Amino acid sequence: MDAITVIGLIAALFTTVSLLPQLIKVWKTKSTKDISTSMFALFGGGVLLWFIYGLLVNDFPIIIANSLAFVQAVIILVFKLKFK
Amino acid sequence: MDAITVIGLIAALFTTVSLLPQLIKVWKTKSTKDISTSMFALFGGGVLLWFIYGLLVNDFPIIIANSLAFVQAVIILVFKLKFK
Repeated sequence: MDAITVIGLIAALFTTVSLLPQLIKVWKTKSTKDISTSMFALFGGGVLLWFIYGLLVNDFPIIIANSLAFVQAVIILVFKLKFK
Repeated sequence: MDAITVIGLIAALFTTVSLLPQLIKVWKTKSTKDISTSMFALFGGGVLLWFIYGLLVNDFPIIIANSLAFVQAVIILVFKLKFK
């Protein structure tokens, strides 16, 4: 694995892991008032497209990061709709 | 411009634009209680690394999306620290 792929994987780790604290916070507080539905809807759509892009350019960091980000964005969206 | 680059640019547009509604919401409500500081700190660090990765692999959609996302993530973080 070359250095560029390592940087990509670290980048992927950061952006993927970043959604977890938000997910845990919403889960604990059951409060989503300040969270923008549009943000997570657009973000979810965006990472789904990035995932497709990653498959097309055969880029592993893009594929792994965006598939995991998509799942978390959808869960946060579900919480947002569940806990008004 | 080939079809793959177009998909990448649309993906970039979605994930970049996604932060704007959150930024506007925080700006209007001055309320950030439900927003996770860790999320936007990790996300900001992650998109900065993606930006560097984009430069290294010379991938235009990755470069443009992540530079804009970085700026917005930093602004949301500043709001989070300013409006407790």
